[in-house]
Amino acid sequence: MRHTQGRTSLLRGLLYLLLMLPLLAQAADPLPAWREGPARTAIVEFVETVTKDGGPGYVAPAQRIAVFDNDGTLWSEQPMYFEVLFAMDEVKRLAPEHPQWRSQQPFKAVLENDHQALAKQGMDGLLKIIAATHSGMSSEDFIARSRNWLASARHPRSGKPYTEMVFQPMLELLAYLRAHGFKTYIVSGGEVAFMRAFAEEVYGIPPEQVIGTTLGATFQDQQGRLSIQRQGKIQHNDDGPGKPVSIDAIIGRRPILAFGNSDGDLQMLQWTKAGQGPRFAGLVHHTDGHREWAYDRKSNVGRLDKALDQAQAKGWTVVDMAQAWRRVYPFEAQ
Amino acid sequence: MRHTQGRTSLLRGLLYLLLMLPLLAQAADPLPAWREGPARTAIVEFVETVTKDGGPGYVAPAQRIAVFDNDGTLWSEQPMYFEVLFAMDEVKRLAPEHPQWRSQQPFKAVLENDHQALAKQGMDGLLKIIAATHSGMSSEDFIARSRNWLASARHPRSGKPYTEMVFQPMLELLAYLRAHGFKTYIVSGGEVAFMRAFAEEVYGIPPEQVIGTTLGATFQDQQGRLSIQRQGKIQHNDDGPGKPVSIDAIIGRRPILAFGNSDGDLQMLQWTKAGQGPRFAGLVHHTDGHREWAYDRKSNVGRLDKALDQAQAKGWTVVDMAQAWRRVYPFEAQ
Repeated sequence: MRHTQGRTSLLRGLLYLLLMLPLLAQAADPLPAWREGPARTAIVEFVETVTKDGGPGYVAPAQRIAVFDNDGTLWSEQPMYFEVLFAMDEVKRLAPEHPQWRSQQPFKAVLENDHQALAKQGMDGLLKIIAATHSGMSSEDFIARSRNWLASARHPRSGKPYTEMVFQPMLELLAYLRAHGFKTYIVSGGEVAFMRAFAEEVYGIPPEQVIGTTLGATFQDQQGRLSIQRQGKIQHNDDGPGKPVSIDAIIGRRPILAFGNSDGDLQMLQWTKAGQGPRFAGLVHHTDGHREWAYDRKSNVGRLDKALDQAQAKGWTVVDMAQAWRRVYPFEAQ
Repeated sequence: MRHTQGRTSLLRGLLYLLLMLPLLAQAADPLPAWREGPARTAIVEFVETVTKDGGPGYVAPAQRIAVFDNDGTLWSEQPMYFEVLFAMDEVKRLAPEHPQWRSQQPFKAVLENDHQALAKQGMDGLLKIIAATHSGMSSEDFIARSRNWLASARHPRSGKPYTEMVFQPMLELLAYLRAHGFKTYIVSGGEVAFMRAFAEEVYGIPPEQVIGTTLGATFQDQQGRLSIQRQGKIQHNDDGPGKPVSIDAIIGRRPILAFGNSDGDLQMLQWTKAGQGPRFAGLVHHTDGHREWAYDRKSNVGRLDKALDQAQAKGWTVVDMAQAWRRVYPFEAQ
């Protein structure tokens, strides 16, 4: 009797396990937002290759450096880079202290919501707005301002906080890489302290692994009150060829994996691929006008043209967002 | 009979353990080169305070950033900063390619071993020598040159490789901190790539945790051959107030522990101590003319004057090398 009961329990247990297997497999999938397809396969094969102890492509954990662009790669960048939207909101918030801005470009255009006049000011105008809103205060104060804005501002189309406009598949990819001994970095044209205001909480990337455009700074000692004061001059523009330069200056090792989405990431991807041994270069291709945005060769924001040609010529992984991603944002229904 | 034997074995075992206890305690001491005394006590108490889960001074591992100066703090710096000795040897090695150096200061002084003439060139002359020997090549080539020199050059007094002129107690301290969840950084006036040539092997500090003086650099694409080319202009002088500035720019968090040995470390120590919660500031005081060197307020190399006053006024930990360290170098007999 006892013996029979034992056997029945065992059979029941096995049957239960058998029924649960598909569910268990799903729960164990580290990349549920990635559909089966070439991008997902390339990622998984790369990670398996470099982590296979004794295999021909094995890479020691200390060398597993992975670098990610931010705007358009980890979060959206339409209708405009979110940091520029922050800077424009700051111009409006700070305008009472700067009456001259009412008649001075590019500030006038911002205050009058004149997008055409603002576009005419070009990159120069943009840098003026960044400098005016990102300097003249301590590092700590600037990060607090950035956090205040991120906590209250809402994206014009989705109505969501900007920190929710991040890509679910990329969050999964970051976690998947870290679980396999990778050190994940942001290497972005965004200003470094602005990104540090949310990178740890949102991406799990600590401040010391965020690299970006920098402003000059000075150490200030006001009768014992110490601070780092931000200056209005761009010190390093972390875009295009500036990316491999900052990687070499700050990380001091060549990454084995790089992900971007625009021509500003081209040199970082080239630099990564030019190293010896297995290397991965990926591009997020914004092909999803329904769930996100569709743009590439002709966009003013995040233009993807030369890098797309290179990716196609060299067989880099191009992530067709509409095809490859089951979900785009974390807030979408699963 | 059996019972008695068992009891005898037990007693023997206890006796053995009792006899071994002092040895076991010694084997388990993570800081054997540190003598009992105020410096050792301050270090151990600080680490216990910040790692005691639930205690009033607990600091989460992500915030346990420890920064160390290099010259005079982790290795010796007499009769001259080792990197300057490297640069002087490089001037001699490269002289055949630069015939004009024979009549041009500061190079002439180096080639003629004229230390008096060289001293007259001051810091400006030094920077010219650094720029001439540290630029005009790729990052990878420069690191290879540094490693070649480190492998073959010998210290004029000890006859040892420079990488053996490191302080055993500081190696133990670095390992002790890392074993307690600290991330250890170098923040030094030395040029960053020169330090990266040996920091991982010698100190266990990976390249991405080495911060130092930087030269400008450019990304070069010569018909598909990519490199980072080093320029002759100093971009950031990582000394004095430059140290908290680079810590804020690159780490983005305030350290909770800082160690230096000279006035060039003063602002880094002040910045560290000015944060909230438990903070540790330490100074290596070169008081050991027998085993190492004895110098402080009047030295041209590693002058320790204002920082010593501050340390004494504020109760920072001053490590009296002659008193506090049982061993100075790893190669000394134990």
